Amino acid sequence: MAEILVGIAGATGYGGQELLRLLSRHAHARICVAMASGKTENLRTLPALTGLWDGAISAFSIDALARDAAAVFLALPENASADIAPQLLERQVRVFDLSGSFRLRGAEARQRWYPKTPALADDVLVAYGLTERRRSELRTARLVACPGCYPTAALLALEPLAAADLLDGDVFIDAKSGISGAGKTPSERTHFSECHGNVSAYGVFSHRHAAEIEQELSRQVTFVPHLVPLDRGLLETIYTRVRPGTSLTAIADTFEQAYGDDPFVRLRGNALPEIQHVVYTNFCDIGWNLDSDTGRLVLVVCLDNLVKGAAGQALQNFNVAFGLDEREGLV
Amino acid sequence: MAEILVGIAGATGYGGQELLRLLSRHAHARICVAMASGKTENLRTLPALTGLWDGAISAFSIDALARDAAAVFLALPENASADIAPQLLERQVRVFDLSGSFRLRGAEARQRWYPKTPALADDVLVAYGLTERRRSELRTARLVACPGCYPTAALLALEPLAAADLLDGDVFIDAKSGISGAGKTPSERTHFSECHGNVSAYGVFSHRHAAEIEQELSRQVTFVPHLVPLDRGLLETIYTRVRPGTSLTAIADTFEQAYGDDPFVRLRGNALPEIQHVVYTNFCDIGWNLDSDTGRLVLVVCLDNLVKGAAGQALQNFNVAFGLDEREGLV
Amino acid sequence: MAEILVGIAGATGYGGQELLRLLSRHAHARICVAMASGKTENLRTLPALTGLWDGAISAFSIDALARDAAAVFLALPENASADIAPQLLERQVRVFDLSGSFRLRGAEARQRWYPKTPALADDVLVAYGLTERRRSELRTARLVACPGCYPTAALLALEPLAAADLLDGDVFIDAKSGISGAGKTPSERTHFSECHGNVSAYGVFSHRHAAEIEQELSRQVTFVPHLVPLDRGLLETIYTRVRPGTSLTAIADTFEQAYGDDPFVRLRGNALPEIQHVVYTNFCDIGWNLDSDTGRLVLVVCLDNLVKGAAGQALQNFNVAFGLDEREGLV
Amino acid sequence: MAEILVGIAGATGYGGQELLRLLSRHAHARICVAMASGKTENLRTLPALTGLWDGAISAFSIDALARDAAAVFLALPENASADIAPQLLERQVRVFDLSGSFRLRGAEARQRWYPKTPALADDVLVAYGLTERRRSELRTARLVACPGCYPTAALLALEPLAAADLLDGDVFIDAKSGISGAGKTPSERTHFSECHGNVSAYGVFSHRHAAEIEQELSRQVTFVPHLVPLDRGLLETIYTRVRPGTSLTAIADTFEQAYGDDPFVRLRGNALPEIQHVVYTNFCDIGWNLDSDTGRLVLVVCLDNLVKGAAGQALQNFNVAFGLDEREGLV
Repeated sequence: MAEILVGIAGATGYGGQELLRLLSRHAHARICVAMASGKTENLRTLPALTGLWDGAISAFSIDALARDAAAVFLALPENASADIAPQLLERQVRVFDLSGSFRLRGAEARQRWYPKTPALADDVLVAYGLTERRRSELRTARLVACPGCYPTAALLALEPLAAADLLDGDVFIDAKSGISGAGKTPSERTHFSECHGNVSAYGVFSHRHAAEIEQELSRQVTFVPHLVPLDRGLLETIYTRVRPGTSLTAIADTFEQAYGDDPFVRLRGNALPEIQHVVYTNFCDIGWNLDSDTGRLVLVVCLDNLVKGAAGQALQNFNVAFGLDEREGLV
Repeated sequence: MAEILVGIAGATGYGGQELLRLLSRHAHARICVAMASGKTENLRTLPALTGLWDGAISAFSIDALARDAAAVFLALPENASADIAPQLLERQVRVFDLSGSFRLRGAEARQRWYPKTPALADDVLVAYGLTERRRSELRTARLVACPGCYPTAALLALEPLAAADLLDGDVFIDAKSGISGAGKTPSERTHFSECHGNVSAYGVFSHRHAAEIEQELSRQVTFVPHLVPLDRGLLETIYTRVRPGTSLTAIADTFEQAYGDDPFVRLRGNALPEIQHVVYTNFCDIGWNLDSDTGRLVLVVCLDNLVKGAAGQALQNFNVAFGLDEREGLV
Repeated sequence: MAEILVGIAGATGYGGQELLRLLSRHAHARICVAMASGKTENLRTLPALTGLWDGAISAFSIDALARDAAAVFLALPENASADIAPQLLERQVRVFDLSGSFRLRGAEARQRWYPKTPALADDVLVAYGLTERRRSELRTARLVACPGCYPTAALLALEPLAAADLLDGDVFIDAKSGISGAGKTPSERTHFSECHGNVSAYGVFSHRHAAEIEQELSRQVTFVPHLVPLDRGLLETIYTRVRPGTSLTAIADTFEQAYGDDPFVRLRGNALPEIQHVVYTNFCDIGWNLDSDTGRLVLVVCLDNLVKGAAGQALQNFNVAFGLDEREGLV
Repeated sequence: MAEILVGIAGATGYGGQELLRLLSRHAHARICVAMASGKTENLRTLPALTGLWDGAISAFSIDALARDAAAVFLALPENASADIAPQLLERQVRVFDLSGSFRLRGAEARQRWYPKTPALADDVLVAYGLTERRRSELRTARLVACPGCYPTAALLALEPLAAADLLDGDVFIDAKSGISGAGKTPSERTHFSECHGNVSAYGVFSHRHAAEIEQELSRQVTFVPHLVPLDRGLLETIYTRVRPGTSLTAIADTFEQAYGDDPFVRLRGNALPEIQHVVYTNFCDIGWNLDSDTGRLVLVVCLDNLVKGAAGQALQNFNVAFGLDEREGLV
């Protein structure tokens, strides 16, 4: 099989480094170019990656990106993605975008949450890259808008239940995220001394990932993210009710039908997932507890925000899009 | 003012050590005896406390406890408390119990959650030691059942709203706790390598602190505790709805009336509390966010589980019970 | 006793906040002004300190600082300290400086390590504020240059042995520091995701605290600091040899004579100090292990970098300088 | 190429789990049996490994181990290894032992540090499995005694310099280790609340890994291990002197000659290694700083204690022993 040449823009951020790490052992993809926007003169490679991938990080150039690569991963801030993606599409490069630029479809939602991000032309085939739920779209899409880490966990847990019309009433999503989810740029909120020994909530009623979840789920949710003092991984505890009479078996069956053959969703039943079980993997683990008398349902979902919540899912989407084994480079 | 002699049973556990630390600087209380049940021969003092309290930890003896002390703090496993408290009460010692032994009043609930703990005689005056909400009972009580760390946070946030009849519908309490809440005895669940970089839920629909919260609140709640990788402190995010038409002002007023003069409850409004703000203090911080259109309410509450959630609140109760300044030894 | 009015410049940094926390419970000092150089309009107080100290942080003004305060604590970057201290001294305010501006005495050393910091006038009485070793100078000094956290630990451990002429040969100091030692300004090096799960050495052969240690000890040392993933506290392991024939007793006696009556140095012998024993306290714990056959000596020293390594020692110096009980506000 | 069947004894400990994780993606080895000594009835697999290796953990049986496997990895306590290894050798199984049972060769050292471990028969070909330094022995050895995590780091850094006769005088090794190095059995020392926010030294002048380092290096060293609050990884800072006149170039050349072609030793020069660069990899990173004027040398070495310090190096040894690509399963 011929190698597929891939490019990475934003290779020095956390998502970009994770892409390099994963792609360095992919059997069929070869990194032809890895770019960063900052100073790259002295940056031969990244210390953790020496010996795995020894290429050089080059300065940003749209021409260099488009010249050889059949596919490009964009691990960039949303505005940069919005600017670059259309240029790559024009040159027939397939784009896997990790930012939020192309996730929201409605004009109003886009205007509210990504006001500076121009819309794409209408005829661009865009897929929302929640792999397990959108495989058929992925095969033909030119641009894959990879979901955020929070929506990936929430939607993998909630979509099958919503599709089976089992949910009843409010949905409250309490998310606990490792700090790497906030990216590599230092800030007061991600300063070690502010995070260590701490838990803090943020973005109550105002996080744009809530909009993303609501769009895909066609349902209002209450989403509260929290920073917890760890680096990688997130766990969401979801509180809701199921329709009267819904049995534990019905829930288990619904999940089994949705994910029974999927390599990266692990159904845990009442053995609740933990972040340690998923770090450095592309797995998403889902557990559930039902109080049958009252219909109260508690879901617990885990994933590594840099893998299944970012680079790993992007690569999984790439595998599907190019007709490869979905597991390639990911186990 | 004469010194009040106090004893501590269980002085080497985390709650007991915190009591020693706090009492060592109390102006009116003097530790006359500190006991532990394990080996005490070589235990002159605890390393962290040298220079603050240099007494010796002695072996357990009910006579030595009852002889001099006017008040005894029990920082013991529930069965030990249940055994010892009545003997101390008989000898006219006032007891401040940090265990769960005497928190549940109903026979059925006691049987379910503390099956090995015998009931007290009917004529013992027991107070549930949630200081801010039970001061009048504390003044006369012979035995103070200090609340658990989880119920302290949940009840301080929810009781005023429930009393004002503002709550409407389900109450979901998502708690994130530091590991010291699990005590000092090593176990797989509290092994460093199992907790670091991890978040895990436990006790869904089956934690006895839920029973304690429901008893005091007279209302069903869904309570899910999580272990997060830090030592001290807990944060609860509470999801519910308020009655239609309830304004943000009404909520703020309710809290202000409940705690406006209290030294240890800090009302934060929409500036959400964080664990770092309360560690090593007796403060309980409460914040809230209301979505006025839908009535969805998100409360965030924080405290140090070893202080306001255990030793600090016990000492606060002691101060109230003995007519001292409530802040003594706690600021 | 009349209150002593004190001012704090740099009140929102970690050292400054710790000063506020400690001074809020000092019996004889009252904070008359607390300043910060950044935006202070909306900064009524610091969240963690509400209820302990409810004053307002004001914008920086040398006049406001000098007007009422008898003593001022400078918790500022070194250049700001170098600029402000002389102005305060002129107005007869006693100054306790936490920066490195005035610690090095030799012109050459100053030029190398603090090139932008002007020298003081020759007639200013400056004391190097290592409390336990410089009490007599502290009583008369107008300016106290409080030592850095690393030198405080190293010098408290090494000075008595050097003074007794027990050391023989190389001295290697391996320091492990919590991240708060790097201050509150976010940087890549102190970004949570870069520190969590990590240990890194820095400043080998080139840390200016080495110069400070060598100046006070009159001896070359090899000093290598490391960042370890915790917030508060530092531990130094010191490797050296003692003169042939030096006994364990001689070492213990030397320490006992040096610190036997001191409230804040705890001698641990071969029960090695740990960071947890000293956090949130002003203690410095010292332990030692001697291999008698070979004369190899391993010292282990611990302190809280924000307390004994910064704000606490500054306050201890203040207590000595003003003739107060050395422990006031610190236990 | 035919599959090589391998067995694992002690598969549920941290070393054993890491072996499972690594072997699950090895192209030429297949796990035919994985055993644990505790209760295994309900242990179908380990949560983190589901989907990677879905075999069942079976109860311990020497017959089952020896029947099919060509090679067995022992991730067991030392006494268990000492008991089992000879039985496997008798049945012509090649053994890769991760315990300390067979690392020390001298009778006296063995008696002191592993008093309950019987010696092997004289004719057993044992190799000390420090891969990069012992490849030729590994090819023929029947039993490979894999080095401890601390000696692996120390020896990879020191052996080339000692072999080139560049070292002069004392060697002080200050090791900082993640807690997983202490194994999976809960203890007070590894209880989360005792480790979080803490650094502690232990085993000064009395750690058996010092004996292992001294044996291989034929030189006295002072070794002090510390526990630091992270899970995986260790960093050693080594303080010594080089012979007068030794240049930085001579040191760099020595390392380059020793490891220039090795896939898992990364030479960092004065860009000092950090734990984060090596976790979840089999790399050992080595950096150095020389003070040319005085000859003082500071080495910094890092590795992941569960990979290069345990399971990874065992697998690397297996690859060499069976004539496979040394990198197989490790990148």
